[in-house]
Amino acid sequence: MKAPIYLDYNGTTPHDPEVIAAMRPFFETGFGNPSSSHWYGIAPRRAVETARAGVASALHCDPSEILFTSGGTESNNHAIKSVARLKKAQGNHIITSEIEHPAVLDVCRFLETDGYRVTYLPVDETGIVRVADVAAALCPETILISIMHANNETGSIQPVAEIGALAMAKSNGIIMHTDAAQSVGKIPTDVRDLNVHLLTVAGHKVYAPKGIGALYIKKPLKLEPFCHGAGQESGRRAGTENVLEIVGLGKACEIAGRDLAKNMTHMEFLRNRLHDKLAAEIEPVRLNGHPTRRLPNTVNLSFYGREANRILEEIGLDVAASAGAACHSDTVEISHVLTAMKVPNDWARGTIRFSVGKMTTTAEIDRAAEVVAAAVNQSGGRQLKSLPPLRT
Amino acid sequence: MKAPIYLDYNGTTPHDPEVIAAMRPFFETGFGNPSSSHWYGIAPRRAVETARAGVASALHCDPSEILFTSGGTESNNHAIKSVARLKKAQGNHIITSEIEHPAVLDVCRFLETDGYRVTYLPVDETGIVRVADVAAALCPETILISIMHANNETGSIQPVAEIGALAMAKSNGIIMHTDAAQSVGKIPTDVRDLNVHLLTVAGHKVYAPKGIGALYIKKPLKLEPFCHGAGQESGRRAGTENVLEIVGLGKACEIAGRDLAKNMTHMEFLRNRLHDKLAAEIEPVRLNGHPTRRLPNTVNLSFYGREANRILEEIGLDVAASAGAACHSDTVEISHVLTAMKVPNDWARGTIRFSVGKMTTTAEIDRAAEVVAAAVNQSGGRQLKSLPPLRT
Repeated sequence: MKAPIYLDYNGTTPHDPEVIAAMRPFFETGFGNPSSSHWYGIAPRRAVETARAGVASALHCDPSEILFTSGGTESNNHAIKSVARLKKAQGNHIITSEIEHPAVLDVCRFLETDGYRVTYLPVDETGIVRVADVAAALCPETILISIMHANNETGSIQPVAEIGALAMAKSNGIIMHTDAAQSVGKIPTDVRDLNVHLLTVAGHKVYAPKGIGALYIKKPLKLEPFCHGAGQESGRRAGTENVLEIVGLGKACEIAGRDLAKNMTHMEFLRNRLHDKLAAEIEPVRLNGHPTRRLPNTVNLSFYGREANRILEEIGLDVAASAGAACHSDTVEISHVLTAMKVPNDWARGTIRFSVGKMTTTAEIDRAAEVVAAAVNQSGGRQLKSLPPLRT
Repeated sequence: MKAPIYLDYNGTTPHDPEVIAAMRPFFETGFGNPSSSHWYGIAPRRAVETARAGVASALHCDPSEILFTSGGTESNNHAIKSVARLKKAQGNHIITSEIEHPAVLDVCRFLETDGYRVTYLPVDETGIVRVADVAAALCPETILISIMHANNETGSIQPVAEIGALAMAKSNGIIMHTDAAQSVGKIPTDVRDLNVHLLTVAGHKVYAPKGIGALYIKKPLKLEPFCHGAGQESGRRAGTENVLEIVGLGKACEIAGRDLAKNMTHMEFLRNRLHDKLAAEIEPVRLNGHPTRRLPNTVNLSFYGREANRILEEIGLDVAASAGAACHSDTVEISHVLTAMKVPNDWARGTIRFSVGKMTTTAEIDRAAEVVAAAVNQSGGRQLKSLPPLRT
């Protein structure tokens, strides 16, 4: 059986063959512990530092500002929890948005149980946080702003640089964090332009394996380690280094920086082609997210009165994409992002996110458009009345 | 150049070829996100559950009691910090030992800055915690005991079952944790016999990659997640699953259980052969650790008046092992384990840990014994007076 056309690159990415090739030696004689003083420690130790430089090259920072973690979720947990702890004496107020990934939202909710106060900012109808809302939310107790770089569902790019500038302008040292899990390799991620102290990288969104990530920590900021123990990562993150996947992440980031312009053009062309074809075949279609300030690979579409999961089931053997609403046995739950954007329910429940990647081909897009259009148009007769109730 | 003979299996292990083979499909079409509802999610989701059963098989527990983590250090951090938080209302006292791994000791030191009180128990001269000391340390505020299963430096096996029984006997629910990073695959690790609520597994000590581990959590104990975010691992550990390395760990644990008796015999034979040969060639030699209650693969030897790092440098092209004392530019620091065992300094600074593995051969042991004996005997003339000062 042929695998379906993969249009879920925001969910996770395949491994880049160059990434696999870079990792291979560390399965064999390169298995050593980087902390070992003997021969076996040398190659892995060097490889970890080469990888650190690779990640730094994609972010335009110093390699010493890169900390390896077990993934985007750990990076977000570490950034937010450690800043909260560090700044406890200064204040207890955190600003974030309603459209963050659960790895930010759930950390904030946890901190609310621990004496912190969190402002969850709304977004406009294109899924973008208003800078003025951030400015209005700032108060003397504000210690941290965490606003994602690009949203995983809609691809809408947030005004991180402007928000970061607000944080940097405050004399009491508000820390600015951005979850860039979705943006690395898709749009420029130069930390010098973004005005951030902390930035999250997730390996498996950038053609490296799952289970590895990084956190950019702007010098001279120092955070309490998230994992305590031995002195790995210059005492910033204990635990024997995940050499295999660190090597993979380093290579993936190096490629992400090197091929950024080429991949942006490629993905935007295919993404628009898909959007155009579906808009031509299906009536009506709604684009969720900003028309232009958006990741070049993402198109989040609502099909009025349809149910996303039925469409995805229908196309499942041919096309893999993800729904904007999750089915729970007999109810449907609209995603928190679409809810924050106030997408009307009869649109929201028929929402599918298509996300292309550097490996996507024109032939795949053309075939996918055909299959999706046929499925959506077929499901037309079943719309509205036969849909399961919304979860309230 | 031929790689040196590897006698540092307690530091890290090579990858088992069966482990690599099991991981391979997940580099290719198995790259999907286990959380995806579409085709690409199916194989990785199943693989994670197969791996969970693999880990459970080595510990003789239910697969649902296994949580995947980013390694032994995270498992220890999660276990200790989460229990401390969970039991805060009940008490603030933790019992551990002086010979734990830094991933336990440093977590305990961190908790001391957060209002917890920690008792660090001494050990006897064989490097074993006395059960009576644990009993004497228990008080109404005790919430957690964390004692390692086997020590990484000496291999001495701790009376975990007896200590666990003390914890279980208390009506106020003291939690028993053991760091079994060094014991899985080397001695039986049946949680039903060990009387523990929590047990740490580290992938890279059992022929799986670095960057993956597990925590056994005895039902019905529930801990606050260490990483907050999406609902992976049944809401117990957020973050997209490290599918590649989870698969590797599952296979490695399955093998560890399957081949335990065979590997124990093999390793003990080689370990004793090395010990016997060195004892025959070098005078005097001191064994650190318990003569029999010890991991079958570990022999920690002190060479009187010698300096371990000089010996390791001397043999470095032929044999890789690790020192019991770390050199810091111009001073020598004795390991905390040897210090706890009160090994006299002139012995301690000449300490080398040899740890064999299932891949070690008789020819390697014979050659290694020759090389080590020659180096130690050569360095005889340089002993004592010319050694650098001890760090105090």
